Amino acid sequence: MVDNRKILGVIGGLGPIATAHFMELVINMTDVQTDQQHLPMIVYNMPFIPDRTAYILDNTKEDPLPKMLEIGHALQEQGADCIAVPCVTAHYFMDALEKRIHVPLINGVRETVAHLKENGIRKVGIMATDGTVRSGIFHKELEKQGLLPIAPSANAQKDVMHLIFNNVKAGKPAEMDRFLSAAGDLRRQGAEVIILGCTELSLIKRDEKIGAGFVDAMEVLARQSVLACHKPLKKEYECLITK
Amino acid sequence: MVDNRKILGVIGGLGPIATAHFMELVINMTDVQTDQQHLPMIVYNMPFIPDRTAYILDNTKEDPLPKMLEIGHALQEQGADCIAVPCVTAHYFMDALEKRIHVPLINGVRETVAHLKENGIRKVGIMATDGTVRSGIFHKELEKQGLLPIAPSANAQKDVMHLIFNNVKAGKPAEMDRFLSAAGDLRRQGAEVIILGCTELSLIKRDEKIGAGFVDAMEVLARQSVLACHKPLKKEYECLITK
Repeated sequence: MVDNRKILGVIGGLGPIATAHFMELVINMTDVQTDQQHLPMIVYNMPFIPDRTAYILDNTKEDPLPKMLEIGHALQEQGADCIAVPCVTAHYFMDALEKRIHVPLINGVRETVAHLKENGIRKVGIMATDGTVRSGIFHKELEKQGLLPIAPSANAQKDVMHLIFNNVKAGKPAEMDRFLSAAGDLRRQGAEVIILGCTELSLIKRDEKIGAGFVDAMEVLARQSVLACHKPLKKEYECLITK
Repeated sequence: MVDNRKILGVIGGLGPIATAHFMELVINMTDVQTDQQHLPMIVYNMPFIPDRTAYILDNTKEDPLPKMLEIGHALQEQGADCIAVPCVTAHYFMDALEKRIHVPLINGVRETVAHLKENGIRKVGIMATDGTVRSGIFHKELEKQGLLPIAPSANAQKDVMHLIFNNVKAGKPAEMDRFLSAAGDLRRQGAEVIILGCTELSLIKRDEKIGAGFVDAMEVLARQSVLACHKPLKKEYECLITK
């Protein structure tokens, strides 16, 4: 299977629809004319990986790391040149994965923060699940790169959770008044750009008009996957902050 | 990786967007409540597989079979319990694949015809590329199972090709007057149901109102993949003929 083409490995299924959406993003961002020029991927869409949020909030629950490592090693053996994990919450395990998989991992959290920094942003709001906010994944990375993280107030965080669980995950339309209210809370605290740090929020971005000043972590991961595999990027994806 | 769960292997990338769309169909058809209950898949999304239509129309072109076999064997080694190829044209190579891969292949063409037969249909129209029509994939299978194939007139076939290449592949909206005109041609010849035998036509079905009496071969392949892997099917996908 291995030749001069770079192959993207994907630890997927977290959840399964997010993986298919991520693949579409990668394909749509790649600036090529024929099927044959597109980026080859090997995708392990393995939804049985134990729940990441459950483990992060309660370490006595089943650890998803062993299964993620097993998949990472399978991708490595199959010739993947770099590996993406299209799930923000799973980035909690990224350091542990990087230590034990001998193929470069594309870190969607680190790349999102780097993308904001490159674009001169300093104050960054975070919209994500309680699990992601509590684990501090984005907070730590923003601070590490010298940017200022801004979390939603308790009420705004409740709106974000409602959008993720009671709207998108439940297959219902997003209540955009709640979305705009949570975003407004972050803007009032000074957020120049707001990170959509959860697949369900990426789907709201895909389906609704959300306006300027957002960046979707899943899009940054897809963009970086295209670049890491030496494929040409469509011009309109050079900056991913919505205008 | 292998335990009591069935794993679906996918020879993908023919083209890449069709593969992501097929994965979404499988996920959406599976009647489960949590990520963990979904169907595990290993997907080789390898768009560099040589062009199938080009080879079918001119056997001096590069043969895509060796690469498809290589992927099939890799899926077999990785523990796939059955294999799907989400590309109608590639079904031309299905017999050759079946002979050399020791994992059951799900034949989307055979299953589409079987699904129509189960539902009491006798006269079947075919909408597909010149390559698929000329290779006779659907014609032979329909006759084998005792159904009557109906091909579009030369003019209607031109409309179908225009829809596939000048509309969908070109990223433009489908000219629905041409779609309805081609379908009308097949109905006048007696077609009770029309097979959408090409991914681009599946996308028209997804995005437009096409009316009653169509069946999408890609949906049948996804449905059969769910069943072959012993997953529960959502009730609304039991019959795939549009109403």
